[in-house]
Amino acid sequence: MVIVLGIDPGLANTGFGVVQRRSRDLVALDGGVIATGAREPLADRLTRIHRVVGELLEHYRPDAVSMESLYFGRNATSALAVGQARGVALLAAAQRGIDCIDYTPQQIKGAVCGRGGADKAQVQRMVQALLRLDAPPTPDHAADALAAAICHANHAPLRAALSA
Amino acid sequence: MVIVLGIDPGLANTGFGVVQRRSRDLVALDGGVIATGAREPLADRLTRIHRVVGELLEHYRPDAVSMESLYFGRNATSALAVGQARGVALLAAAQRGIDCIDYTPQQIKGAVCGRGGADKAQVQRMVQALLRLDAPPTPDHAADALAAAICHANHAPLRAALSA
Repeated sequence: MVIVLGIDPGLANTGFGVVQRRSRDLVALDGGVIATGAREPLADRLTRIHRVVGELLEHYRPDAVSMESLYFGRNATSALAVGQARGVALLAAAQRGIDCIDYTPQQIKGAVCGRGGADKAQVQRMVQALLRLDAPPTPDHAADALAAAICHANHAPLRAALSA
Repeated sequence: MVIVLGIDPGLANTGFGVVQRRSRDLVALDGGVIATGAREPLADRLTRIHRVVGELLEHYRPDAVSMESLYFGRNATSALAVGQARGVALLAAAQRGIDCIDYTPQQIKGAVCGRGGADKAQVQRMVQALLRLDAPPTPDHAADALAAAICHANHAPLRAALSA
């Protein structure tokens, strides 16, 4: 039973979603957002993101972490902020020997919606359907993190089959 | 005697420079680059930057870390990479309770060269002169890190005097 922690990194909001694959079913174990305030010192914000991601890794012991890889369309200032959050989240996984796999936005949307050009609302609806949730996951960052986790959970068996 | 660790973060090359203020003199204690290879897994690169910055902090016990704050002119992809390195370096300082102070490129160049618009060669020459080095510090990343350290070492007494 593969467990995947999806992360949608951000300085203000780092989305997370934990998905477990049970034979052909996907089950959401957790999902939410690590929120930090713009007025908090940067050091405190990064320390909290690193600590909470570490706590999620300790609690769920995922087989892998899955993240979106590309940030086209963002400007350099926001990419720098995202990068800082992404760096400490990746570090938390690396410190526990857990692989972090990057997927492009197109791969993630393709895995969840069947096409790479799907919009946010479609992603939310499909995440809801695939995980059999009562409502679409909110906020966006949690939905995106769950989508990243689903993407890896659906790729992992294929990868294993191809390499067998 | 204030000791400052200057850091010029980057994924391929993170420059570092350790400067000590002895009354009115500045002395370089260390300087160099943490280099990581483009073919190494990202997790390994970030883990090494975090670990080596941590080792520098343990060894020199600086009063503060000083970093350049702004990355105008970089594109989003390079800003994301810099951000990841910057995040884990900042985290290493935060985990030891050491403040990290950001200075703009203009503040750093102004502190080292007397004007914010100085070019790289001028910064290297002035870092050499201020620290009484036999040769200009190389590579660029080490020189930039030393410049960031000098900037804070020269600001810190002024800040203390103003708040006294």
